[in-house]
Amino acid sequence: MEPSPGSRDARPGVAPVAAVLPAGGSGERLGGATPKQFCAVQGRPLVSYTVRAMERISWIADIIVVVSPENIEIMKSIIERYGHKRVTIVKGGITRHRSIFNGLKVFAENEFSNHLQKPEVVIIHDAVRPFVEEDILSKVVMAAKEHGAAGAIRPLVSTVIASAADGCLDHSLERARYRASEMPQAFLFDIIYEAYQQCTDYDLDYGTECLHLALKYCKTNAKLVEGTADLWKVTYKRDLYAAESIIKDNLSQQVCVITDVNEAVAQVGFLLHECLKSQIKVHLDISENISFSIGMEELTRIKKFAREVKKKNILVYGLLIQYKDNLLLQETVNSAAALIMALIKDRNPELIGQLLVA
Amino acid sequence: MEPSPGSRDARPGVAPVAAVLPAGGSGERLGGATPKQFCAVQGRPLVSYTVRAMERISWIADIIVVVSPENIEIMKSIIERYGHKRVTIVKGGITRHRSIFNGLKVFAENEFSNHLQKPEVVIIHDAVRPFVEEDILSKVVMAAKEHGAAGAIRPLVSTVIASAADGCLDHSLERARYRASEMPQAFLFDIIYEAYQQCTDYDLDYGTECLHLALKYCKTNAKLVEGTADLWKVTYKRDLYAAESIIKDNLSQQVCVITDVNEAVAQVGFLLHECLKSQIKVHLDISENISFSIGMEELTRIKKFAREVKKKNILVYGLLIQYKDNLLLQETVNSAAALIMALIKDRNPELIGQLLVA
Repeated sequence: MEPSPGSRDARPGVAPVAAVLPAGGSGERLGGATPKQFCAVQGRPLVSYTVRAMERISWIADIIVVVSPENIEIMKSIIERYGHKRVTIVKGGITRHRSIFNGLKVFAENEFSNHLQKPEVVIIHDAVRPFVEEDILSKVVMAAKEHGAAGAIRPLVSTVIASAADGCLDHSLERARYRASEMPQAFLFDIIYEAYQQCTDYDLDYGTECLHLALKYCKTNAKLVEGTADLWKVTYKRDLYAAESIIKDNLSQQVCVITDVNEAVAQVGFLLHECLKSQIKVHLDISENISFSIGMEELTRIKKFAREVKKKNILVYGLLIQYKDNLLLQETVNSAAALIMALIKDRNPELIGQLLVA
Repeated sequence: MEPSPGSRDARPGVAPVAAVLPAGGSGERLGGATPKQFCAVQGRPLVSYTVRAMERISWIADIIVVVSPENIEIMKSIIERYGHKRVTIVKGGITRHRSIFNGLKVFAENEFSNHLQKPEVVIIHDAVRPFVEEDILSKVVMAAKEHGAAGAIRPLVSTVIASAADGCLDHSLERARYRASEMPQAFLFDIIYEAYQQCTDYDLDYGTECLHLALKYCKTNAKLVEGTADLWKVTYKRDLYAAESIIKDNLSQQVCVITDVNEAVAQVGFLLHECLKSQIKVHLDISENISFSIGMEELTRIKKFAREVKKKNILVYGLLIQYKDNLLLQETVNSAAALIMALIKDRNPELIGQLLVA
C-alpha cells in the first residue's frame, strides 16, 4: 500500500493537507439564476457533493469553501443541513483568483478570527467538480510535495484554434501536443501563497490558472497528472443533467429481495433474485411472518408510510406481483424485475407510495 | 427574411448544399462496446437524431453518412426503421480524415454507382452532435460561400497547456485568445476536395481538423462562427446521459387534458389545467361521453392497450384522481399534476399501463 499523502508529515500541530474550493461563480453559462454550485441535483446542492467528496478523505484536515458574500448564508445552511465537518466558509472576491487568494489568506493572516493552521500542501479544487476521487487527490498532493505544484490534465476533446483579427482562422494547434488543465491542483502552501502575493492586479482580475501563477512568480513547473474522465466541470445545463444521472446511478446499485418461507412466495423471490442479479447487486432474505393483503385502506397506508420515510430520502414504491398460472410466472417475474430496475434507476420521488402491478 | 443558403444557386441540376456525417468512430472513450453514434437514446440510435436534424432542412439535398464497414448493415436498418430520406451510406476509412475523404469522393468520382451531383457547398458535421440547429448550419454555409471555408467555434471551457518532455508544465495558453473548433463546418466543395487530394498520408492518418487542411493546401482561412452551447460532441458516457435528458425535455413539452361535461369531472379538469399550465403547455378539451369504471379487468385492458401503442412510441399511463371531499380536491389535483409532470419528464417505458393514484 502506498502511504497516504498526510502520513509523511509527523510534525505535531501542523495540518499536512487542506483544500480550498472556490465556489464563487455566478453560473452565467448555465443560463439560470441559480449559480451552478448551488443547483439541486437529486434534491441536494452540487457543492454539497463536492464537499462530501473532500471530507470523506481523512487526511484532508480543513476544507475552505469560498463563496460570494450574498451566498454565505445559503452555504451555512447547506453545511448544517448535510452535517458537513471541517468546513470553513470564506468570503470570495470578484474574480476566481481573488476568491482563491482569500481562501489561502485564512491560513496565513492573523486578521481572521477563524485562523487555521497553515498546511504543508493545499489542494485547490472547483466546487462544481463533484466526482473527484481520492486516487487523483492523493496523486496531485504527492506530486506537489515533490515538485512544488501539480495539476490534473485531460486530453483535449476539440482542436484548439487561434483566430486572426478578421474573425478568420489564423492557425490550429496540434492536438496531441496540448492538454486541458483541469482540477484538482495541489501546491506547497508557501509556493502558491507567495505567487498570489507577488502577482499583479491584472493577473488577479483576468487570469484563471493557478499553475500559471506558480510558474510565473515562483519558477515552479507543475507536475502534470493524467486524470480520469469524471473530473469534468459542471458548466452548462447539460452537465447538470449528466451529474444527476451519474448520482442516480451511484445511488442505485443494490436491491434486497425479502421473501416469505411460504413455498409459492419463496419461489417468486428466488426467480426475482435470479432475474435481477445479472443487472444489479441483489441480496435475498428469507423471513417468516411476512404477509400482505391489498385493499384500498392498505393503499392509503402505503402512501402515508412512503411520505413519512421520504423525509429520510428513502423512496418506497409498492409492487404487486400477480400470477394465476405457473406457466406465466417467469414472464410476470421478468416484468417485475423490469419495473424494479426502472424505479431504482429513475428514483422519481413523485411516484412514491404508488402500487404498481407486474 | 434572409435568403436560405440554397436559394442563391439557380443553376439547374446542381445540388447547392450537401452534408457529410463521419460516423465511423469506435467510441473507445465511452468505455463501451457500442460506438457512441449507435448508442440508443430513448430507444433510438444517436446517429438517427443527427440525420433527422439534417433532413429537416429542405435546402440540404444529400446527406452522406460514412460508417465503418462492419456497421453498414446497422446503418441501413436505422435508415429503414426511422424512414430517413436523402441519405447515402458510404464505407469509411481507418481514420476520421480518410472517412470524410471517402464521403466527398461520392460526389466527385465515377467509380461509385450511386454517383451524386456535386454540391457547391458541403457541410461536414459529426454524427455525435445531434442538437445542431438550422441557424448555425445556415451561417456556416453562407460564410463558406464567401470565404471558401467556415467552422463553428466555442469558448474554451478549460485552460489549455503544453507539457514539457518531463511531464511538467511548459506553458499555458491565454484562454481568451483561443477557441475550441467545433462542428458544423462548411466548405466550397472544390476547396475541401482539392485539400484532401493534396494532403499527405500523415495528414490523413494523424490529422483531425478539416479547417487546417483547407488552410494548409488551399490557402483558405476559414471564417470562424460562434456557435451555441448545444453543438457539443457526445464523447463520454456522461454526454449520453445529458443527451438523453435533453431529448426527454424536448419530447415533453405539452399535455392535453380531456374532460367530460359532467360538472364534477369538468371541475377536476379545469383545476388540473390551471395547475399544469404554469409548468407546461396544456390543451383543455371538453368532450361528451367519456366514462371509465375501474376494475381488475379494466387494469388488464389498460396494460394491453399501453403495450400496443408503445410500438408507436406512445407511452400510456393510467391515473386515478380520487377524492371524496371537496375540501381536499385542490390537494388531490396538485398531487395529480405532480404525477403527470413526473411521468412525462421521465418517459419511463417500463411504467406504461400502470394505474397510479393521485
